[in-house]
Amino acid sequence: MLACELMADYAELIDSDRLEEWLELFTEDARYDVIPRENVEQGLPLSIMVCSNKAQLRDRITALRQANEYNLHYDRHLIGSVRVRPSADGTFEIGANYAVFQTTLEGQSRLFSAGCYKDRVRIVDGQLRIYDKCVIVDTFSIPTLLATPL
Amino acid sequence: MLACELMADYAELIDSDRLEEWLELFTEDARYDVIPRENVEQGLPLSIMVCSNKAQLRDRITALRQANEYNLHYDRHLIGSVRVRPSADGTFEIGANYAVFQTTLEGQSRLFSAGCYKDRVRIVDGQLRIYDKCVIVDTFSIPTLLATPL
Amino acid sequence: MLACELMADYAELIDSDRLEEWLELFTEDARYDVIPRENVEQGLPLSIMVCSNKAQLRDRITALRQANEYNLHYDRHLIGSVRVRPSADGTFEIGANYAVFQTTLEGQSRLFSAGCYKDRVRIVDGQLRIYDKCVIVDTFSIPTLLATPL
Repeated sequence: MLACELMADYAELIDSDRLEEWLELFTEDARYDVIPRENVEQGLPLSIMVCSNKAQLRDRITALRQANEYNLHYDRHLIGSVRVRPSADGTFEIGANYAVFQTTLEGQSRLFSAGCYKDRVRIVDGQLRIYDKCVIVDTFSIPTLLATPL
Repeated sequence: MLACELMADYAELIDSDRLEEWLELFTEDARYDVIPRENVEQGLPLSIMVCSNKAQLRDRITALRQANEYNLHYDRHLIGSVRVRPSADGTFEIGANYAVFQTTLEGQSRLFSAGCYKDRVRIVDGQLRIYDKCVIVDTFSIPTLLATPL
Repeated sequence: MLACELMADYAELIDSDRLEEWLELFTEDARYDVIPRENVEQGLPLSIMVCSNKAQLRDRITALRQANEYNLHYDRHLIGSVRVRPSADGTFEIGANYAVFQTTLEGQSRLFSAGCYKDRVRIVDGQLRIYDKCVIVDTFSIPTLLATPL
């Protein structure tokens, strides 16, 4: 159940633009990776975006808030059933399919991205936290910027 | 788990056009509100539709059955993970993201609406019932009528 | 919870093209049926596709692997909350809404199918297995082949 709550919080915090709180779902050493499915299937390690620790992720949020120009929009994440696989070292692998719908400021929605999450999480101070987030995007042909997180 | 079942019933009863049974998920004093996200974010209280008690909601169903002309279609709700927050007074706030897909009678489907539910529920005769349903629609530019409930 | 896991496995095994493992979710006498919603509502028993036992389903997978020509693509299933209804004979009826998104090899995604599952399952050697899968498709106008399973 903790894993489901983590996923639900993940979606809610992005979708309501509370990205600073979203950051707190990650450990300090967290890696955040967006990889096209095509590359995963061919064993090519090339990502669309990588942050190899939380400071880099924090920096992305700051850039988004202060510097980036991008198509303003609303995000809406739908996350499917969460699969949890415990590891011997006390960490967990959790996975789920997702679809993200984006809506323009004129109120028109479209499917923006479909794919899945393959995350590694561990318990930090009684809370489940992400230390390795891997977003595998089916939709790697992205017509606009990948501005807000997937 | 009761909250998840309520959401699942909510989706199933609309999607299978059992709207009279769907009504029974609400308390007599229930409010049903559809608000564009744009308005929510700007603190504007303007709704696309409001029913301020169950009698009004019942009236809408009757109108739909007998009077309204609208594009006939099938609805399909996908509802994401349900977040439950208990209140001190024994009621609950439950929330979830949703996407509604509409299909024409020719069998063509499209995304009709994306958004989220922010509901207030309480236990009535051992059943969880909605007394305040708030549908926040990202997709406030609606190309056809908002005929069947979201 | 077992029913949710079964649905999650169902989605994951199709989406990751592990169709031989997906087959193992079915009993030997399993029926697999894809029916347009239009037909269901009119009480017409006509299916788009039927496999009336697992051997036929296995044959379909073999054909898909070796013979069929179809638009290569990635599948992504989003499955909504799972409803479980136990029967007197120890079997279960489980149902859920679904949306399937397909992505071309160029990385463009679209809604491919929306509908619901109405499945009958039973416990075989401690595992929940499907003996009657009924896919009711809202989207019965299918622009490309129905190649990979829904």
